[in-house]
Amino acid sequence: MRVEIWTDINCPWCYIGKARFEQALAAFPHRAEVEVVHRSFELDPHAPQTSRPVLPLLADKYGMSLEQAEAAEARIAENAHGEGLPYLAGRRDAANSFDMHRLLHFAKEQGRQDELLDALYRANFAEERSAFGTDRLVELAVGAGLDEEAAAAVLADPAAYAEAVREDEQTAAAMGATGVPFFVLDRRLGVSGAQPAETFTRALEQAWESRVPAPLIPVGGGGGVGGGDAQACGPDGCELPQR
Amino acid sequence: MRVEIWTDINCPWCYIGKARFEQALAAFPHRAEVEVVHRSFELDPHAPQTSRPVLPLLADKYGMSLEQAEAAEARIAENAHGEGLPYLAGRRDAANSFDMHRLLHFAKEQGRQDELLDALYRANFAEERSAFGTDRLVELAVGAGLDEEAAAAVLADPAAYAEAVREDEQTAAAMGATGVPFFVLDRRLGVSGAQPAETFTRALEQAWESRVPAPLIPVGGGGGVGGGDAQACGPDGCELPQR
Repeated sequence: MRVEIWTDINCPWCYIGKARFEQALAAFPHRAEVEVVHRSFELDPHAPQTSRPVLPLLADKYGMSLEQAEAAEARIAENAHGEGLPYLAGRRDAANSFDMHRLLHFAKEQGRQDELLDALYRANFAEERSAFGTDRLVELAVGAGLDEEAAAAVLADPAAYAEAVREDEQTAAAMGATGVPFFVLDRRLGVSGAQPAETFTRALEQAWESRVPAPLIPVGGGGGVGGGDAQACGPDGCELPQR
Repeated sequence: MRVEIWTDINCPWCYIGKARFEQALAAFPHRAEVEVVHRSFELDPHAPQTSRPVLPLLADKYGMSLEQAEAAEARIAENAHGEGLPYLAGRRDAANSFDMHRLLHFAKEQGRQDELLDALYRANFAEERSAFGTDRLVELAVGAGLDEEAAAAVLADPAAYAEAVREDEQTAAAMGATGVPFFVLDRRLGVSGAQPAETFTRALEQAWESRVPAPLIPVGGGGGVGGGDAQACGPDGCELPQR
């Protein structure tokens, strides 16, 4: 079974939703058979590279005072604390997250995607220092077990993993995602938002119970699904070529 | 797009089929958006742990002489050489592959699955020394970039990744696979056997063109797919909790 989770690092509900999903997954009897893949979603693809403090940004966006923005962040922080997550309300900044997503795809190839995503969330929501900027990202990558030079090379090449990020975003759009976090189970069930852990439990159970795959469409000749004889091995031995 | 490939290390057509698939993938314009996952299939789950030379095994299995078994292996070797793969005809041995599959699942978590699978194939089909046995597997794991102690710990614990292997095998059975290699594209298209590279090209193109995902079934409340309001962020900002 596969769960794909679309997220953005600028999204506090993604940080909180990940923890809620993981609570459900930790208690799921078939958790060993669940693969989790994190996918890219930019809340604002046009955000500038240079980061800006979040409170004036929120105040602008929602037409509220700085005090109201601070109160809103404090309520989000309460939700995070409720899941046992550290959160420094109103201390984060925001910037373009494309490089973070490219780096997360590199980390996936290296088997370190989950570690890097956690490191990015912590840096953004729970640490005084900004999570943005190339040097800081390399530092966070190293902390997540990635090679320093390789991570720096990915960040230095704007084309590296850019297609993979775009492809994730197109897939999310094609599946009707309008926001994040967005959870997709076996490309059949969808969960929107940082739902309570019980909702994720229900989704995991539903996906598990209905997981009999649909019939495959065969391509080419061959045994099994394809029909005919193929160069293949089965319980009774291997096809032996005659020449 | 995701391609899952069920294989066994005791399967020469899996070794050859992997090369043919990779030829097609290397020439596929959207290759950057294709994820390849290797899945477990044991041709003989009851095979003994201690390895035995392959020629007498083949002669027994097919009721042929040792010379005929040698000739059959030589013809398989020709197919391998035709793809530029090294193959020492008739020199391999065969044994239970469950531990290899467990180790491949560990390698997947570490982002080293493809490297380990290649190392196992090479060791089995193209090297004088046996590919089987715990010490040899640890050596091959290290060659594939895995941590020596961690690989040894996986092999020492028979339960490690055992469920993941079984789950792969059940999925293959549910999809009608009767032999390997068995290729599944986005859980929609199937290719059986070491087909020519052109067949894989056709399958990749067909999967790409038809890749619009089916509508998701929503679980829980929430925006987007789920409907209603969720704790989520979208292009217009984040849901702000009222308390």
